[in-house]
Amino acid sequence: MYFWDKYRKTTKLHNSYVCLGLDPNLELMPKYLLKKSNPLWEFNKEIIESTKSKVAAYKLNYAFYLSCGLSGLEALGKSIDYIPSYIPIILDVKVGDIANTMVQYAKAYFEYMKVDAITVNPLMGEDVMTPLMEYKDKFFFVLSITSNRSAVDFLKKGSLYKDISQKIDKWGYLQFGAVVGATNPKELKIVRSLMPNTLFLIPGIGKQGGSLSDVMSNAIASNNNPSVLINSSRGIIHKCDSEEFASSAAEETEKLRNAINMYLN
Amino acid sequence: MYFWDKYRKTTKLHNSYVCLGLDPNLELMPKYLLKKSNPLWEFNKEIIESTKSKVAAYKLNYAFYLSCGLSGLEALGKSIDYIPSYIPIILDVKVGDIANTMVQYAKAYFEYMKVDAITVNPLMGEDVMTPLMEYKDKFFFVLSITSNRSAVDFLKKGSLYKDISQKIDKWGYLQFGAVVGATNPKELKIVRSLMPNTLFLIPGIGKQGGSLSDVMSNAIASNNNPSVLINSSRGIIHKCDSEEFASSAAEETEKLRNAINMYLN
Repeated sequence: MYFWDKYRKTTKLHNSYVCLGLDPNLELMPKYLLKKSNPLWEFNKEIIESTKSKVAAYKLNYAFYLSCGLSGLEALGKSIDYIPSYIPIILDVKVGDIANTMVQYAKAYFEYMKVDAITVNPLMGEDVMTPLMEYKDKFFFVLSITSNRSAVDFLKKGSLYKDISQKIDKWGYLQFGAVVGATNPKELKIVRSLMPNTLFLIPGIGKQGGSLSDVMSNAIASNNNPSVLINSSRGIIHKCDSEEFASSAAEETEKLRNAINMYLN
Repeated sequence: MYFWDKYRKTTKLHNSYVCLGLDPNLELMPKYLLKKSNPLWEFNKEIIESTKSKVAAYKLNYAFYLSCGLSGLEALGKSIDYIPSYIPIILDVKVGDIANTMVQYAKAYFEYMKVDAITVNPLMGEDVMTPLMEYKDKFFFVLSITSNRSAVDFLKKGSLYKDISQKIDKWGYLQFGAVVGATNPKELKIVRSLMPNTLFLIPGIGKQGGSLSDVMSNAIASNNNPSVLINSSRGIIHKCDSEEFASSAAEETEKLRNAINMYLN
Protein backbone atom coordinates (compact mmCIF):
# COMPACT_ATOMS: atom_id res chain seq x y z
CA MET A 1 0.00 0.00 0.00
CA TYR A 2 1.41 3.39 -0.98
CA PHE A 3 2.20 5.88 1.76
CA TRP A 4 -0.29 8.41 0.39
CA ASP A 5 -3.06 5.78 0.34
CA LYS A 6 -2.40 4.99 3.99
CA TYR A 7 -2.40 8.70 4.83
CA ARG A 8 -5.71 9.24 3.00
CA LYS A 9 -7.23 6.23 4.72
CA THR A 10 -6.31 7.14 8.31
CA THR A 11 -7.03 10.85 8.00
CA LYS A 12 -10.56 9.97 6.79
CA LEU A 13 -11.25 6.92 8.93
CA HIS A 14 -9.90 8.45 12.15
CA ASN A 15 -10.82 12.02 11.19
CA SER A 16 -7.35 12.95 12.38
CA TYR A 17 -4.20 14.80 11.32
CA VAL A 18 -2.32 13.86 14.48
CA CYS A 19 1.06 12.21 14.07
CA LEU A 20 1.86 10.66 17.43
CA GLY A 21 5.55 10.64 18.26
CA LEU A 22 6.60 7.43 19.99
CA ASP A 23 9.77 8.69 21.68
CA PRO A 24 9.62 6.68 24.89
CA ASN A 25 11.96 7.90 27.61
CA LEU A 26 12.78 5.57 30.52
CA GLU A 27 13.18 8.55 32.85
CA LEU A 28 9.68 9.82 32.17
CA MET A 29 7.64 6.61 32.14
CA PRO A 30 5.74 5.04 35.06
CA LYS A 31 8.19 3.44 37.48
CA TYR A 32 6.43 0.07 37.60
CA LEU A 33 7.22 -0.48 33.91
CA LEU A 34 10.96 -0.40 34.61
CA LYS A 35 10.66 -3.79 36.31
CA LYS A 36 9.46 -5.44 33.09
CA SER A 37 11.96 -7.17 30.82
CA ASN A 38 11.51 -4.60 28.03
CA PRO A 39 9.97 -1.38 29.42
CA LEU A 40 10.07 0.52 26.10
CA TRP A 41 8.03 -2.18 24.40
CA GLU A 42 5.53 -2.52 27.27
CA PHE A 43 5.09 1.26 27.26
CA ASN A 44 4.62 1.49 23.49
CA LYS A 45 2.22 -1.45 23.35
CA GLU A 46 -0.19 0.25 25.74
CA ILE A 47 0.15 3.64 24.06
CA ILE A 48 -0.48 2.15 20.60
CA GLU A 49 -3.46 0.17 21.90
CA SER A 50 -5.09 3.27 23.40
CA THR A 51 -4.39 5.68 20.50
CA LYS A 52 -4.51 3.60 17.31
CA SER A 53 -8.04 4.67 16.39
CA LYS A 54 -7.23 8.37 16.87
CA VAL A 55 -4.05 9.02 14.89
CA ALA A 56 -3.22 9.68 11.27
CA ALA A 57 0.31 8.30 11.66
CA TYR A 58 2.96 7.27 14.15
CA LYS A 59 6.48 8.67 14.14
CA LEU A 60 9.18 6.68 15.95
CA ASN A 61 12.35 8.57 16.83
CA TYR A 62 15.22 6.14 16.30
CA ALA A 63 17.48 7.77 18.92
CA PHE A 64 15.18 6.84 21.81
CA TYR A 65 15.44 3.15 20.88
CA LEU A 66 19.12 3.09 19.96
CA SER A 67 20.08 4.57 23.35
CA CYS A 68 18.64 1.45 25.01
CA GLY A 69 20.86 -0.91 23.04
CA LEU A 70 19.60 -4.20 21.63
CA SER A 71 16.49 -4.24 23.83
CA GLY A 72 15.63 -0.80 22.45
CA LEU A 73 15.94 -2.04 18.89
CA GLU A 74 13.82 -5.04 19.80
CA ALA A 75 11.16 -2.67 21.17
CA LEU A 76 11.35 -0.69 17.93
CA GLY A 77 10.81 -3.81 15.82
CA LYS A 78 7.96 -5.07 17.97
CA SER A 79 6.25 -1.66 17.93
CA ILE A 80 6.45 -1.49 14.12
CA ASP A 81 4.90 -4.96 13.92
CA TYR A 82 2.19 -4.09 16.43
CA ILE A 83 0.91 -0.95 14.70
CA PRO A 84 -2.03 -1.85 12.39
CA SER A 85 -0.67 -2.13 8.87
CA TYR A 86 -2.96 0.55 7.38
CA ILE A 87 -1.49 3.27 9.66
CA PRO A 88 1.57 5.00 8.19
CA ILE A 89 4.76 4.56 10.22
CA ILE A 90 7.44 7.22 9.96
CA LEU A 91 10.91 6.39 11.26
CA ASP A 92 12.58 9.63 12.36
CA VAL A 93 16.25 9.17 11.48
CA LYS A 94 17.14 12.43 9.68
CA VAL A 95 19.45 10.39 7.48
CA GLY A 96 21.55 11.81 4.66
CA ASP A 97 24.62 10.34 2.95
CA ILE A 98 26.16 9.61 -0.45
CA ALA A 99 24.22 7.33 -2.81
CA ASN A 100 26.35 4.24 -2.12
CA THR A 101 25.52 4.51 1.60
CA MET A 102 21.88 5.53 1.11
CA VAL A 103 21.34 2.24 -0.74
CA GLN A 104 22.24 0.44 2.51
CA TYR A 105 20.09 2.68 4.69
CA ALA A 106 17.11 2.26 2.36
CA LYS A 107 17.53 -1.52 2.54
CA ALA A 108 17.57 -1.33 6.36
CA TYR A 109 14.56 0.95 6.75
CA PHE A 110 12.29 -0.33 3.99
CA GLU A 111 13.20 -4.00 3.52
CA TYR A 112 14.34 -4.97 7.00
CA MET A 113 12.37 -2.67 9.33
CA LYS A 114 9.50 -2.23 6.86
CA VAL A 115 8.49 1.32 7.78
CA ASP A 116 6.49 3.48 5.35
CA ALA A 117 8.47 6.68 5.56
CA ILE A 118 11.64 8.23 6.97
CA THR A 119 12.90 11.71 7.69
CA VAL A 120 15.82 12.85 5.54
CA ASN A 121 18.54 15.47 5.92
CA PRO A 122 19.13 17.12 2.51
CA LEU A 123 22.48 18.82 3.24
CA MET A 124 24.43 16.63 0.79
CA GLY A 125 21.97 17.34 -2.04
CA GLU A 126 20.08 15.25 -4.55
CA ASP A 127 22.47 12.25 -4.31
CA VAL A 128 20.81 11.52 -0.96
CA MET A 129 17.40 11.15 -2.63
CA THR A 130 18.18 9.14 -5.77
CA PRO A 131 18.42 5.66 -4.16
CA LEU A 132 15.27 6.40 -2.12
CA MET A 133 13.17 7.14 -5.20
CA GLU A 134 13.48 3.48 -6.22
CA TYR A 135 11.10 2.61 -3.39
CA LYS A 136 7.96 3.84 -5.15
CA ASP A 137 5.55 3.02 -2.30
CA LYS A 138 7.69 4.76 0.34
CA PHE A 139 7.84 8.38 1.43
CA PHE A 140 10.55 10.79 2.53
CA PHE A 141 10.10 13.82 4.76
CA VAL A 142 12.96 16.20 4.03
CA LEU A 143 14.09 18.75 6.62
CA SER A 144 13.07 22.12 5.27
CA ILE A 145 12.89 24.47 8.24
CA THR A 146 13.33 22.95 11.67
CA SER A 147 11.69 23.89 14.96
CA ASN A 148 14.85 24.37 17.04
CA ARG A 149 16.35 27.73 17.98
CA SER A 150 19.64 27.31 16.12
CA ALA A 151 17.82 26.85 12.80
CA VAL A 152 19.03 30.45 12.39
CA ASP A 153 22.64 29.24 12.10
CA PHE A 154 22.26 27.85 8.58
CA LEU A 155 18.67 27.10 7.50
CA LYS A 156 17.35 30.60 8.09
CA LYS A 157 20.56 32.28 6.98
CA GLY A 158 20.51 33.40 3.35
CA SER A 159 18.05 31.42 1.27
CA LEU A 160 18.85 27.86 2.37
CA TYR A 161 15.42 26.80 3.62
CA LYS A 162 13.87 28.26 0.47
CA ASP A 163 16.41 26.52 -1.79
CA ILE A 164 15.66 23.23 -0.04
CA SER A 165 11.91 23.80 -0.35
CA GLN A 166 12.19 24.39 -4.09
CA LYS A 167 14.14 21.15 -4.49
CA ILE A 168 11.54 19.22 -2.48
CA ASP A 169 8.85 20.59 -4.76
CA LYS A 170 10.92 19.55 -7.78
CA TRP A 171 11.53 16.03 -6.44
CA GLY A 172 7.75 15.70 -6.35
CA TYR A 173 5.03 15.53 -3.72
CA LEU A 174 4.20 11.90 -4.54
CA GLN A 175 7.30 10.72 -2.70
CA PHE A 176 8.67 13.80 -0.93
CA GLY A 177 7.26 15.64 2.05
CA ALA A 178 8.79 18.37 4.19
CA VAL A 179 9.59 18.69 7.88
CA VAL A 180 8.51 22.17 8.83
CA GLY A 181 8.83 23.40 12.42
CA ALA A 182 5.76 24.96 14.04
CA THR A 183 7.92 27.57 15.72
CA ASN A 184 8.41 29.49 12.45
CA PRO A 185 5.05 31.15 11.67
CA LYS A 186 6.44 33.58 9.10
CA GLU A 187 8.41 30.92 7.25
CA LEU A 188 5.48 28.46 7.30
CA LYS A 189 3.60 30.70 4.87
CA ILE A 190 6.64 30.97 2.59
CA VAL A 191 7.35 27.24 2.48
CA ARG A 192 3.69 26.48 1.73
CA SER A 193 3.81 28.87 -1.21
CA LEU A 194 6.99 27.17 -2.46
CA MET A 195 5.55 23.64 -1.96
CA PRO A 196 1.80 23.96 -2.65
CA ASN A 197 1.05 20.20 -2.78
CA THR A 198 3.65 18.86 -0.37
CA LEU A 199 2.73 16.92 2.75
CA PHE A 200 4.13 18.75 5.77
CA LEU A 201 5.24 16.92 8.89
CA ILE A 202 5.05 19.59 11.56
CA PRO A 203 6.79 19.13 14.91
CA GLY A 204 7.26 21.86 17.47
CA ILE A 205 3.83 22.50 18.96
CA GLY A 206 3.53 21.94 22.70
CA LYS A 207 6.81 21.56 24.60
CA GLN A 208 8.81 23.34 21.90
CA GLY A 209 6.56 26.40 21.93
CA GLY A 210 4.95 26.43 18.48
CA SER A 211 1.31 27.55 18.22
CA LEU A 212 -1.35 25.40 16.54
CA SER A 213 -3.20 28.50 15.44
CA ASP A 214 -0.10 29.77 13.60
CA VAL A 215 0.33 26.40 11.95
CA MET A 216 -3.27 26.08 10.83
CA SER A 217 -3.47 29.58 9.44
CA ASN A 218 -0.16 29.39 7.55
CA ALA A 219 0.77 25.82 6.69
CA ILE A 220 -2.28 23.96 5.44
CA ALA A 221 -2.71 23.45 1.69
CA SER A 222 -6.51 23.80 1.79
CA ASN A 223 -9.35 23.03 4.20
CA ASN A 224 -10.41 19.98 2.18
CA ASN A 225 -6.92 18.69 1.69
CA PRO A 226 -4.74 20.21 4.39
CA SER A 227 -1.68 18.02 3.59
CA VAL A 228 -0.30 18.20 7.09
CA LEU A 229 0.62 15.85 9.88
CA ILE A 230 0.83 17.65 13.21
CA ASN A 231 3.32 15.83 15.41
CA SER A 232 3.29 15.69 19.17
CA SER A 233 5.46 13.37 21.25
CA ARG A 234 6.42 14.17 24.85
CA GLY A 235 3.32 16.33 25.38
CA ILE A 236 1.11 13.31 24.74
CA ILE A 237 2.96 10.14 25.74
CA HIS A 238 4.65 11.49 28.87
CA LYS A 239 1.90 13.80 30.10
CA CYS A 240 1.10 11.32 32.87
CA ASP A 241 3.61 9.05 34.63
CA SER A 242 1.18 6.94 36.65
CA GLU A 243 -0.57 3.69 35.67
CA GLU A 244 -3.10 5.74 33.69
CA PHE A 245 -0.47 6.87 31.18
CA ALA A 246 -2.13 5.13 28.23
CA SER A 247 -5.60 6.52 28.78
CA SER A 248 -4.05 9.93 29.41
CA ALA A 249 -2.22 9.66 26.06
CA ALA A 250 -5.52 8.77 24.38
CA GLU A 251 -7.20 11.82 25.91
CA GLU A 252 -4.37 14.13 24.86
CA THR A 253 -4.44 12.70 21.33
CA GLU A 254 -8.15 13.36 21.14
CA LYS A 255 -7.71 16.91 22.43
CA LEU A 256 -5.12 17.65 19.75
CA ARG A 257 -7.22 15.97 17.06
CA ASN A 258 -10.23 18.08 17.99
CA ALA A 259 -8.21 21.28 18.24
CA ILE A 260 -6.82 20.70 14.73
CA ASN A 261 -10.22 19.82 13.29
CA MET A 262 -11.77 23.02 14.69
CA TYR A 263 -9.62 24.98 12.24
CA LEU A 264 -10.74 22.86 9.28
CA ASN A 265 -14.51 23.37 9.54
CA MET B 1 41.97 8.37 26.68
CA TYR B 2 41.11 11.52 24.73
CA PHE B 3 40.50 11.23 21.02
CA TRP B 4 43.43 13.56 20.20
CA ASP B 5 45.78 11.47 22.35
CA LYS B 6 44.79 8.34 20.47
CA TYR B 7 45.26 10.15 17.16
CA ARG B 8 48.72 11.39 18.19
CA LYS B 9 49.69 7.94 19.37
CA THR B 10 48.68 6.00 16.25
CA THR B 11 49.93 8.56 13.74
CA LYS B 12 53.37 8.38 15.42
CA LEU B 13 53.49 4.69 16.30
CA HIS B 14 52.17 3.51 12.93
CA ASN B 15 53.64 6.41 10.97
CA SER B 16 50.26 6.64 9.27
CA TYR B 17 47.49 9.08 8.41
CA VAL B 18 45.29 6.39 6.89
CA CYS B 19 41.75 6.08 8.17
CA LEU B 20 40.52 2.69 7.03
CA GLY B 21 36.82 2.58 6.26
CA LEU B 22 35.21 -0.65 7.42
CA ASP B 23 32.16 -0.63 5.15
CA PRO B 24 31.83 -4.36 4.51
CA ASN B 25 29.53 -5.24 1.63
CA LEU B 26 28.20 -8.80 1.36
CA GLU B 27 28.08 -8.54 -2.42
CA LEU B 28 31.76 -7.69 -2.69
CA MET B 29 33.31 -10.06 -0.16
CA PRO B 30 34.79 -13.53 -0.81
CA LYS B 31 31.99 -16.03 -1.41
CA TYR B 32 33.25 -18.57 1.14
CA LEU B 33 32.61 -16.08 3.95
CA LEU B 34 28.90 -16.02 3.18
CA LYS B 35 28.60 -19.55 4.57
CA LYS B 36 29.75 -18.42 8.02
CA SER B 37 27.19 -17.50 10.67
CA ASN B 38 28.17 -13.81 10.66
CA PRO B 39 30.06 -12.95 7.44
CA LEU B 40 30.44 -9.23 8.25
CA TRP B 41 32.18 -10.02 11.51
CA GLU B 42 34.43 -12.73 10.01
CA PHE B 43 35.39 -10.32 7.25
CA ASN B 44 36.12 -7.42 9.61
CA LYS B 45 38.10 -9.57 12.04
CA GLU B 46 40.56 -10.58 9.34
CA ILE B 47 40.81 -7.06 7.91
CA ILE B 48 41.45 -5.58 11.37
CA GLU B 49 44.03 -8.25 12.16
CA SER B 50 45.98 -7.56 8.96
CA THR B 51 45.81 -3.74 9.06
CA LYS B 52 45.84 -2.75 12.74
CA SER B 53 49.54 -1.85 12.79
CA LYS B 54 49.22 0.31 9.67
CA VAL B 55 46.29 2.65 10.30
CA ALA B 56 45.78 5.91 12.17
CA ALA B 57 42.09 5.20 12.72
CA TYR B 58 39.16 3.06 11.66
CA LYS B 59 35.88 4.47 10.39
CA LEU B 60 32.82 2.22 10.51
CA ASN B 61 29.92 3.24 8.32
CA TYR B 62 26.76 2.45 10.30
CA ALA B 63 24.59 1.90 7.19
CA PHE B 64 26.55 -1.17 6.10
CA TYR B 65 25.83 -2.87 9.43
CA LEU B 66 22.24 -1.71 9.85
CA SER B 67 21.30 -3.10 6.43
CA CYS B 68 22.16 -6.61 7.73
CA GLY B 69 19.76 -6.37 10.66
CA LEU B 70 20.63 -7.66 14.11
CA SER B 71 23.56 -9.76 12.88
CA GLY B 72 24.97 -6.60 11.29
CA LEU B 73 24.72 -4.73 14.58
CA GLU B 74 26.32 -7.67 16.34
CA ALA B 75 29.21 -7.50 13.83
CA LEU B 76 29.51 -3.78 14.52
CA GLY B 77 29.74 -4.32 18.27
CA LYS B 78 32.25 -7.17 17.95
CA SER B 79 34.41 -5.14 15.56
CA ILE B 80 34.48 -2.18 17.95
CA ASP B 81 35.55 -4.52 20.78
CA TYR B 82 38.19 -6.19 18.62
CA ILE B 83 40.00 -3.03 17.53
CA PRO B 84 42.93 -2.33 19.92
CA SER B 85 41.76 0.30 22.39
CA TYR B 86 44.50 2.85 21.53
CA ILE B 87 43.29 3.12 17.91
CA PRO B 88 40.59 5.79 17.42
CA ILE B 89 37.26 4.45 16.18
CA ILE B 90 34.99 6.77 14.21
CA LEU B 91 31.37 5.75 13.74
CA ASP B 92 30.11 7.29 10.50
CA VAL B 93 26.48 8.17 11.20
CA LYS B 94 26.16 11.76 9.92
CA VAL B 95 23.74 12.39 12.76
CA GLY B 96 22.04 15.72 13.45
CA ASP B 97 18.92 16.45 15.50
CA ILE B 98 17.50 18.70 18.20
CA ALA B 99 19.25 18.69 21.59
CA ASN B 100 16.67 16.46 23.30
CA THR B 101 17.29 13.77 20.66
CA MET B 102 21.06 14.28 20.46
CA VAL B 103 21.24 13.41 24.18
CA GLN B 104 19.89 9.96 23.28
CA TYR B 105 22.20 9.50 20.30
CA ALA B 106 25.23 10.52 22.35
CA LYS B 107 24.28 7.98 25.00
CA ALA B 108 24.01 5.27 22.31
CA TYR B 109 27.29 6.04 20.56
CA PHE B 110 29.52 6.94 23.49
CA GLU B 111 28.13 5.01 26.47
CA TYR B 112 26.65 1.95 24.81
CA MET B 113 28.77 1.45 21.66
CA LYS B 114 31.82 3.17 23.17
CA VAL B 115 33.25 4.67 19.98
CA ASP B 116 35.70 7.59 20.13
CA ALA B 117 34.18 9.82 17.48
CA ILE B 118 31.18 10.24 15.21
CA THR B 119 30.38 12.16 12.05
CA VAL B 120 27.79 14.92 12.47
CA ASN B 121 25.46 16.75 10.08
CA PRO B 122 25.32 20.42 11.12
CA LEU B 123 22.21 21.50 9.15
CA MET B 124 20.13 22.16 12.30
CA GLY B 125 22.84 24.36 13.81
CA GLU B 126 24.56 24.60 17.16
CA ASP B 127 21.78 22.78 19.06
CA VAL B 128 23.10 19.58 17.47
CA MET B 129 26.51 20.09 19.07
CA THR B 130 25.65 21.22 22.61
CA PRO B 131 24.83 17.79 24.10
CA LEU B 132 27.91 16.30 22.39
CA MET B 133 30.29 18.79 24.04
CA GLU B 134 29.54 17.18 27.41
CA TYR B 135 31.58 14.17 26.31
CA LYS B 136 34.98 15.81 26.76
CA ASP B 137 37.06 12.83 25.62
CA LYS B 138 35.02 12.34 22.44
CA PHE B 139 35.32 13.92 19.03
CA PHE B 140 32.90 15.07 16.33
CA PHE B 141 33.64 15.32 12.62
CA VAL B 142 31.20 17.83 11.18
CA LEU B 143 30.27 17.75 7.48
CA SER B 144 31.83 20.82 5.94
CA ILE B 145 32.16 20.13 2.24
CA THR B 146 31.29 16.64 1.04
CA SER B 147 32.85 14.59 -1.76
CA ASN B 148 29.66 13.81 -3.71
CA ARG B 149 28.59 15.53 -6.92
CA SER B 150 25.40 17.10 -5.56
CA ALA B 151 27.33 19.00 -2.89
CA VAL B 152 26.68 21.84 -5.37
CA ASP B 153 22.96 21.78 -4.51
CA PHE B 154 23.37 23.41 -1.11
CA LEU B 155 26.89 23.22 0.41
CA LYS B 156 28.66 24.88 -2.49
CA LYS B 157 25.78 27.25 -3.20
CA GLY B 158 26.20 30.68 -1.64
CA SER B 159 28.48 30.59 1.40
CA LEU B 160 27.12 27.53 3.26
CA TYR B 161 30.30 25.44 3.43
CA LYS B 162 32.23 28.52 4.53
CA ASP B 163 29.62 29.41 7.17
CA ILE B 164 29.78 25.85 8.50
CA SER B 165 33.59 25.92 8.52
CA GLN B 166 33.63 29.12 10.54
CA LYS B 167 31.28 27.57 13.10
CA ILE B 168 33.44 24.44 13.36
CA ASP B 169 36.45 26.66 14.04
CA LYS B 170 34.43 28.51 16.69
CA TRP B 171 33.26 25.29 18.39
CA GLY B 172 36.93 24.47 18.80
CA TYR B 173 39.43 22.02 17.34
CA LEU B 174 39.80 20.13 20.63
CA GLN B 175 36.44 18.44 20.08
CA PHE B 176 35.41 19.33 16.53
CA GLY B 177 36.88 18.12 13.26
CA ALA B 178 35.61 18.55 9.71
CA VAL B 179 34.63 16.13 6.97
CA VAL B 180 36.13 17.56 3.82
CA GLY B 181 35.76 15.74 0.49
CA ALA B 182 38.91 15.13 -1.55
CA THR B 183 37.03 15.91 -4.75
CA ASN B 184 37.03 19.66 -4.02
CA PRO B 185 40.64 20.85 -4.53
CA LYS B 186 39.75 24.55 -4.72
CA GLU B 187 37.56 24.47 -1.63
CA LEU B 188 40.10 22.40 0.36
CA LYS B 189 42.43 25.39 0.42
CA ILE B 190 39.65 27.70 1.55
CA VAL B 191 38.39 25.44 4.36
CA ARG B 192 41.95 24.97 5.64
CA SER B 193 42.37 28.73 5.83
CA LEU B 194 39.06 28.99 7.73
CA MET B 195 39.96 26.12 10.11
CA PRO B 196 43.75 26.30 10.56
CA ASN B 197 43.96 23.83 13.49
CA THR B 198 41.06 21.54 12.72
CA LEU B 199 41.49 17.82 12.14
CA PHE B 200 40.17 16.97 8.67
CA LEU B 201 38.61 13.62 7.88
CA ILE B 202 39.01 13.35 4.12
CA PRO B 203 37.00 10.81 2.12
CA GLY B 204 36.77 10.77 -1.65
CA ILE B 205 40.15 9.60 -2.90
CA GLY B 206 40.14 6.42 -4.98
CA LYS B 207 36.71 5.24 -6.15
CA GLN B 208 35.18 8.70 -5.80
CA GLY B 209 37.83 10.36 -7.97
CA GLY B 210 39.65 12.72 -5.57
CA SER B 211 43.41 13.11 -5.98
CA LEU B 212 45.84 12.56 -3.11
CA SER B 213 48.18 15.15 -4.56
CA ASP B 214 45.41 17.80 -4.47
CA VAL B 215 44.61 16.87 -0.89
CA MET B 216 48.19 16.98 0.32
CA SER B 217 48.97 20.28 -1.34
CA ASN B 218 45.80 22.02 -0.16
CA ALA B 219 44.44 20.46 3.01
CA ILE B 220 47.27 19.72 5.44
CA ALA B 221 47.85 22.12 8.32
CA SER B 222 51.64 21.74 8.25
CA ASN B 223 54.19 19.03 7.37
CA ASN B 224 54.94 18.37 11.04
CA ASN B 225 51.36 18.39 12.14
CA PRO B 226 49.21 17.71 9.07
CA SER B 227 45.94 17.30 11.03
CA VAL B 228 44.38 15.01 8.47
CA LEU B 229 42.97 11.52 8.29
CA ILE B 230 42.79 10.27 4.72
CA ASN B 231 39.95 7.79 4.45
CA SER B 232 39.72 4.91 2.03
CA SER B 233 37.11 2.14 2.23
CA ARG B 234 36.05 0.12 -0.82
CA GLY B 235 39.37 0.72 -2.58
CA ILE B 236 41.18 -1.10 0.24
CA ILE B 237 38.86 -3.66 1.80
CA HIS B 238 37.17 -4.85 -1.41
CA LYS B 239 40.13 -4.63 -3.79
CA CYS B 240 40.40 -8.45 -3.73
CA ASP B 241 37.50 -10.89 -3.38
CA SER B 242 39.46 -14.12 -3.01
CA GLU B 243 40.79 -15.76 0.17
CA GLU B 244 43.71 -13.31 0.14
CA PHE B 245 41.42 -10.32 0.81
CA ALA B 246 43.00 -9.51 4.17
CA SER B 247 46.60 -9.51 2.98
CA SER B 248 45.49 -7.50 -0.06
CA ALA B 249 43.88 -4.93 2.25
CA ALA B 250 47.11 -4.75 4.24
CA GLU B 251 49.11 -4.12 1.07
CA GLU B 252 46.70 -1.42 -0.13
CA THR B 253 46.79 0.25 3.29
CA GLU B 254 50.57 0.29 3.16
CA LYS B 255 50.55 1.73 -0.35
CA LEU B 256 48.27 4.55 0.73
CA ARG B 257 50.28 5.16 3.90
CA ASN B 258 53.50 5.42 1.89
CA ALA B 259 51.92 7.62 -0.76
CA ILE B 260 50.69 10.05 1.92
CA ASN B 261 54.03 10.05 3.74
CA MET B 262 55.92 10.89 0.53
CA TYR B 263 54.23 14.31 0.59
CA LEU B 264 55.23 14.94 4.20
CA ASN B 265 58.99 14.53 3.87
